Amino acid sequence: MVPDVDVDPRVVRTRRDVLAAAREVLLEEGWERVTVSRVADRSGYARTTLYRHWPQRLDLLRDLIGEEARLVHTTPAGDLRSDLIAELEAFRVAVTSSGLGRVMIAIGQQARDDAELADLNRAMRADGAGVLEEIVAAGVERGELGGRVESGVAVARLVGPVLFGYLFEGDAGLDRRFVESVVDWFLLAAAAPAGQPRH
Amino acid sequence: MVPDVDVDPRVVRTRRDVLAAAREVLLEEGWERVTVSRVADRSGYARTTLYRHWPQRLDLLRDLIGEEARLVHTTPAGDLRSDLIAELEAFRVAVTSSGLGRVMIAIGQQARDDAELADLNRAMRADGAGVLEEIVAAGVERGELGGRVESGVAVARLVGPVLFGYLFEGDAGLDRRFVESVVDWFLLAAAAPAGQPRH
Repeated sequence: MVPDVDVDPRVVRTRRDVLAAAREVLLEEGWERVTVSRVADRSGYARTTLYRHWPQRLDLLRDLIGEEARLVHTTPAGDLRSDLIAELEAFRVAVTSSGLGRVMIAIGQQARDDAELADLNRAMRADGAGVLEEIVAAGVERGELGGRVESGVAVARLVGPVLFGYLFEGDAGLDRRFVESVVDWFLLAAAAPAGQPRH
Repeated sequence: MVPDVDVDPRVVRTRRDVLAAAREVLLEEGWERVTVSRVADRSGYARTTLYRHWPQRLDLLRDLIGEEARLVHTTPAGDLRSDLIAELEAFRVAVTSSGLGRVMIAIGQQARDDAELADLNRAMRADGAGVLEEIVAAGVERGELGGRVESGVAVARLVGPVLFGYLFEGDAGLDRRFVESVVDWFLLAAAAPAGQPRH
C-alpha cells in the first residue's frame, strides 16, 4: 500500500500517532472499540488517511500488536537460565504494564470464532514466542536440555503459568521471583533423568 | 433471597431455565450481553422474576460460573499422577467444549479493572483450583512431591499451559496427551533432587 513506509518521515509520524491513539482506545475503551473510524477520531487524522494505511480493522490490530510485542523481546546471550528468565520477565512486565496482555488474550478468545483473527492469532503466537523458542533450541543444541524438549511445547510451559497468574492471581504474586521459579521448575524437569519413574 | 432454593421444584426449574438461557447468551452473543434483562428476554421469564433471584448481574454471573465449574471436578482416588491427569483433563474438556474457558478468561480480564469482578474472580479461582490443590497437598503429605511444592503455585504450572494452548494453539494440539505431558513434566520437576544445579 505505502511503499516507503519506513523512510518518509511524514508516514512514520502518522503511523506512530495513529498506533498511539489505537493503544489509548484499547486501554481505555476496550478491544471492541478499536476500529478504524474510532481510532481516526481519537488521533485527529482523517479516516481516509487511516484507510490508506490500514484498509481493514485487522491491519490496524496487526500493527498494534506488532508495536506492543516489539517492546517485549530480549537478545539471548548464550546462558540458558538467564536468557529464559530475561525473555519471560520482559513478557511478564509487558503483560502487566502495557496493553499486551489484554490485546493478546482478547485476540486469542475471539480467534476461536473468527477465521481472520485465527490467522492473526497464529502470526502473533509465532512472533511472540520466537525468541523463547530460539533460546530453548539453543539449549537443546548445547546439550543442556536433555534433548527431550520440543521448543513449541516449552513455550506453553513457560508462558502458561505467567498467563494464569495474570488472569487469576492478580499482580501481587506475579513478580520477577515468580518468573524465576517457573524457569527453574522448567529446567529441573528438563534435567531429570530420562528413565525417571512417572510418579 | 429465596430460602428453599433447592427444594421448591418451581424454583429449581426457573433457575435451571434461566441459567441455560444465560449460557446461550454467553456462547452466542458474548460476555457483555449477559445482563439480567437480556437473559430474561431469552429465557421467557419476567424480568421481575429474574431480579428476585439475581438482584445484580454479578449474582447471575456467579451462578453461571458455578454451573459451568460444577461439570469440571473429579474425585481424587489417591494416585498422584492419575488424579492430576483426571482433574486437569476434566478442566481441558470443559474449557474447550463448554463456555467455561470463555467465561473464566473474560472475568479474569475484566477483573483487572473492576473490584466486584475481582472478588468474583478470586472466588472462581479458589473453587476452580480446589481439587487440584487437594491432590497436590495429598501428594506432598504422602512424600511423593519432595515437599517443595506449594499447592497454589502448582496450579499455575498445571493449568497455565492448558490455558495457553486454549488461547494460542487452537484445539488441534490440545488433547489428552497434552494434559498427560504437562502432568509428567510437573512430576519430573517435583521429583528432581533438591540440590540439582540450576542450569
